[in-house]
Amino acid sequence: MKKYVIIVAGGFGTRMNNSVPKQFLLLAGKPVLFHTINAFFSYNNEISIILVLPSSQISKWKELCDENHLTIPHNIVEGGETRFHSVKNGLKSIEEAGLIAIHDGVRPLVSNETISRVYNTAEKLGTAIPVLSVNDSIREISNKTNKSVNRNNLKIVQTPQCFKSEIINKAYQQSYNEMFTDDATVVEKTGEEIFLVDGNNENIKITTAIDLLIAENLIQQLTN
Amino acid sequence: MKKYVIIVAGGFGTRMNNSVPKQFLLLAGKPVLFHTINAFFSYNNEISIILVLPSSQISKWKELCDENHLTIPHNIVEGGETRFHSVKNGLKSIEEAGLIAIHDGVRPLVSNETISRVYNTAEKLGTAIPVLSVNDSIREISNKTNKSVNRNNLKIVQTPQCFKSEIINKAYQQSYNEMFTDDATVVEKTGEEIFLVDGNNENIKITTAIDLLIAENLIQQLTN
Repeated sequence: MKKYVIIVAGGFGTRMNNSVPKQFLLLAGKPVLFHTINAFFSYNNEISIILVLPSSQISKWKELCDENHLTIPHNIVEGGETRFHSVKNGLKSIEEAGLIAIHDGVRPLVSNETISRVYNTAEKLGTAIPVLSVNDSIREISNKTNKSVNRNNLKIVQTPQCFKSEIINKAYQQSYNEMFTDDATVVEKTGEEIFLVDGNNENIKITTAIDLLIAENLIQQLTN
Repeated sequence: MKKYVIIVAGGFGTRMNNSVPKQFLLLAGKPVLFHTINAFFSYNNEISIILVLPSSQISKWKELCDENHLTIPHNIVEGGETRFHSVKNGLKSIEEAGLIAIHDGVRPLVSNETISRVYNTAEKLGTAIPVLSVNDSIREISNKTNKSVNRNNLKIVQTPQCFKSEIINKAYQQSYNEMFTDDATVVEKTGEEIFLVDGNNENIKITTAIDLLIAENLIQQLTN
């Protein structure tokens, strides 16, 4: 089946106290987004890459591609008001059927194995998302009280989240709902089962300056 | 009420691929445990500090105290087989009634405000533990399926966890149970309500080399 990835890069960098959007910050000398795009291209150089960017960032991104000699082919699509609307715009740009992964632009350290697992499982079962175990003690609040929950039953969700195109397209015909925290929650609402695969620990979401520093050190470890 | 803190430092450093136990590794030039002990001493210099260490590490710790001129008074107690048994040994060493906080030795960046909140709330209500919000999407596994859970109802639990001495002493008379992932789960089992206060983001648990690096950078930010 034809493979697509929609890379969603919507942030404006406010949490970073930085005027540069976090997906454009340098990691090991290249923009974060360069690493993200490269991860998918390295997995499969025939993959169709769709990058969703706020309209205000498109010209800057093109400049960065020129400066950094980024020649990996990708289509740029304008983002929407929320992540939900951005993904929807990305989906509209895809015409043929296939497997569509949706990935956070600020997760540059997704492994080849994680990418491979989500496409392979979605091809067989229709849906696949990467998850990790929970190491912290967790409590659940209900009414005015709270109780411990068995963390062995909880999983932390990452991206890329991968779906057969008919499943994800149908899901995104729903109206926006604030309970949609990721693509799996959008798809789940249509009654589809979500299949879980292993993620990778390094696949962190870069949202603060400390995260960028962690990513910098993870890259050094991974390339040593 | 008289204040105690039991600092539990049981790790052997295996996850760190390092023969030095993680609580002895250097952070900003001083052993991690030095920072942890200092956090409580800075909060209140009359606090009674009980450090629980594996018997094999006690002489090394004493050497480190001499080398680093650590003069903060603290009592050393020998650890047990699991964290539960180590805390129990720490509790046995306390004779007077009071407020007893229990803290992970490898959380050196607990803030003065977090420490203050747990003692103040436990003094009023009997129990207090610090918690943080969950930022990731979370799924819950049940039988062979899984579903999204509302992360707004979940909290990540930190230490120090603080209790009136009669409450924590009674709780630790129970037999060990593998569901005891922290002191709150031990106390909850006796029917006591657990009260939540805000933790602090920097109060991370140092269990990997990357965590140590994050802590190093957090210290630089906090002291700038």
